[in-house]
Amino acid sequence: MIAQIISIGNELLIGDTVNTNASWMGQFLNDLGIDVQRVHTISDDKHVIADTIKQSMAESDLVITTGGLGPTHDDITKTTIAELFGVEMRQDEAVLSYIKELFASRNIPFSESNAWQAMVPENCEVLFNKAGTAPGMWFHEQDCFLAVLPGVPYEMKYLMKRRVAEKLREQTKAIGFIHTEYLKTAGIGESTLSDHVLGDLSDFLNDHVSMAFLPSFGQVTLRITGKGDSKEEAISNSAKLIELIREKAGKYIYGDDKDHTLSERVGAILSEQNKTIATAESCTGGLIASTITDVAGSSVYMLGGVVSYANEVKVNELGVDPKHIKTVGAVSKEVALQMAKGVAEKLGADIGISTTGIAGPGGGTAEKPVGTVWIGFYSNEQHFAVKALLTKDRLVNKQRTTVMALELIRRILSGIEELPYALTKETA
Amino acid sequence: MIAQIISIGNELLIGDTVNTNASWMGQFLNDLGIDVQRVHTISDDKHVIADTIKQSMAESDLVITTGGLGPTHDDITKTTIAELFGVEMRQDEAVLSYIKELFASRNIPFSESNAWQAMVPENCEVLFNKAGTAPGMWFHEQDCFLAVLPGVPYEMKYLMKRRVAEKLREQTKAIGFIHTEYLKTAGIGESTLSDHVLGDLSDFLNDHVSMAFLPSFGQVTLRITGKGDSKEEAISNSAKLIELIREKAGKYIYGDDKDHTLSERVGAILSEQNKTIATAESCTGGLIASTITDVAGSSVYMLGGVVSYANEVKVNELGVDPKHIKTVGAVSKEVALQMAKGVAEKLGADIGISTTGIAGPGGGTAEKPVGTVWIGFYSNEQHFAVKALLTKDRLVNKQRTTVMALELIRRILSGIEELPYALTKETA
Repeated sequence: MIAQIISIGNELLIGDTVNTNASWMGQFLNDLGIDVQRVHTISDDKHVIADTIKQSMAESDLVITTGGLGPTHDDITKTTIAELFGVEMRQDEAVLSYIKELFASRNIPFSESNAWQAMVPENCEVLFNKAGTAPGMWFHEQDCFLAVLPGVPYEMKYLMKRRVAEKLREQTKAIGFIHTEYLKTAGIGESTLSDHVLGDLSDFLNDHVSMAFLPSFGQVTLRITGKGDSKEEAISNSAKLIELIREKAGKYIYGDDKDHTLSERVGAILSEQNKTIATAESCTGGLIASTITDVAGSSVYMLGGVVSYANEVKVNELGVDPKHIKTVGAVSKEVALQMAKGVAEKLGADIGISTTGIAGPGGGTAEKPVGTVWIGFYSNEQHFAVKALLTKDRLVNKQRTTVMALELIRRILSGIEELPYALTKETA
Repeated sequence: MIAQIISIGNELLIGDTVNTNASWMGQFLNDLGIDVQRVHTISDDKHVIADTIKQSMAESDLVITTGGLGPTHDDITKTTIAELFGVEMRQDEAVLSYIKELFASRNIPFSESNAWQAMVPENCEVLFNKAGTAPGMWFHEQDCFLAVLPGVPYEMKYLMKRRVAEKLREQTKAIGFIHTEYLKTAGIGESTLSDHVLGDLSDFLNDHVSMAFLPSFGQVTLRITGKGDSKEEAISNSAKLIELIREKAGKYIYGDDKDHTLSERVGAILSEQNKTIATAESCTGGLIASTITDVAGSSVYMLGGVVSYANEVKVNELGVDPKHIKTVGAVSKEVALQMAKGVAEKLGADIGISTTGIAGPGGGTAEKPVGTVWIGFYSNEQHFAVKALLTKDRLVNKQRTTVMALELIRRILSGIEELPYALTKETA
């Protein structure tokens, strides 16, 4: 099945809005086995809209438009389509009463322009939109399907998932179901994960099962997509590969929800084990504490922390020995160890985590180049530090040190021997 | 002048890459007074590329393509264009020797596929690309200009600014020069800034001067664009409006460089005044310290901070009176005042800044709903707190509190009486 997408809106052409809808739809349709041949981005101009829809319908099996369905005078998509097909507009009673109820429940007065939202071309089937007030529309004309959707990303996605995929399935056996799962890993590079841990998976990849690596900031998310003639079949088709990945790479996986964060996982483990944590940060400057406290309810396990940017703060607040700062320097195993222990004892936490490093861009030496970072860990059972060599970029170094520290905590508390990036424990 | 953009690449259609090039080019061309009528996103398919270029050239005065200029077999844009125009490929000696030198200087072996980068259709003029190895190409055929550019955003932007704009100017008087300035404000809402501070600017806005409000996270950036027949004229055309905005809204403007951050400005002021700072954070959880230390060289003025998430940390580390936590609660004027003073004294800093609030989503009460935030400020001269009511969203609240605190520091140190969002000082 060949598809074309038509994105309507002047804001897209003058660059005020980036066309993220088209890429989302491209991926969604591609996963359904539909080949997107072309995306047209066009202005809110009646003739341009009509001509583009007409031509696209002649060239493909499915055309999807987004945009131009709002209640104002510059939203002309649906009247243009009615004219193109030579039909009248009709009022859809179900949509009208839904919008009226919605406004009543929010205590917003109902106006003429809101009622206009319930008007649709006679020859369409309404794609009911519970995510907003503009209904989607479905046409079957000239051997082509046409879906007309609002441009608001949230509403477009709702209608694609709930209505368009369903309509396509009704029409053709070829459109199966898709099931996507995400396995989130941290502390391992994409190539190591792919080549050394997972190895050759080609026996498990076929027309019904595909996989993608999505790397970002020291984390790699695996997207596994199964396809089938039913939801159950799609799930079962991907299950074997997911099981294999969990078997081979289980210790690197911290979550299986797309939006699940590493700090949420660490927080859940701390809660389960009834443990508290405190942070002592130099080079990360508070980013670890901030990331931990991004999680709602983190006050249960996060006592607080010290940002010890100045050496005096390391000495006075965290009990770092000034002798070590003089002899081995603030960026050293000794100082990382003392900071982690110091903050845990001072704040009365079960776990202390520390960072000290050269974030850059300045401050590097031959012996300790920019990107040199020590992370310290302290608990009743363990007290060690690890050394990592990161990049020349200050913000990247802060971000990657934070991910590394959180993943370090996760692995230690989960009893996983191997440290992030196979770093080695160094003790006093 | 009417233009069409053609974005070439399968990765755009299946959603692996978002088409940010098209929106950047749309804005650039729009600023030059060129009307972008349509963007085509198409696959790396010879016939599709040829047909789309042919049709676009018939419909418009300028066509720009991006993508498909790499050295591998799936990059077919330039051979397709040569076929379309019925011309042979020629080797461009200047490009070849530039690429050879580039590789030599980086000690990378030069291969056959690199030499291919220097091949271009006979009828094009080369747009020399110092940002990469794939040259841009300029054609004038059938009463239409065609620019063929690489898809790498950095290279595309370089060629648009340095080469395409220049070629267009050579061809038509109508293409002037543009000059864009950014004025960055914080601590004032977009509508207040627009309606109450700036007022009606219509006398200053015309075909040669335009302005846009770009809001994000408690900051509003003003983009002022001047146009003219020369660079100087473009600058002078925007100068009057910029002067007026500075006059009316000067105290809200913290920077005039697009990439300049508020924490950089605060850091520069602290450096100038030879002052140090320390943070005491509860609801922001370390985000203020992290934002301050995002700036290279911040160790000069940033001593450090305490993240006092648990009440015991507020009491033990910052000297907050436990009586106040019991009577008025941790989210209170009293605690904010004590935290700011406590951290400044403890770390020996000139300035202490504190936050305590209900970040959400839980923890709100009728008296102190989610989004209630107190920010405390302490220096030798001043000691006060301000109360703000923010949103229900935890991360938005952290972000906005951070911007508000930094802007508060900026205004106080700059001797500006009015506080962010016209908040009022409350003292002990």
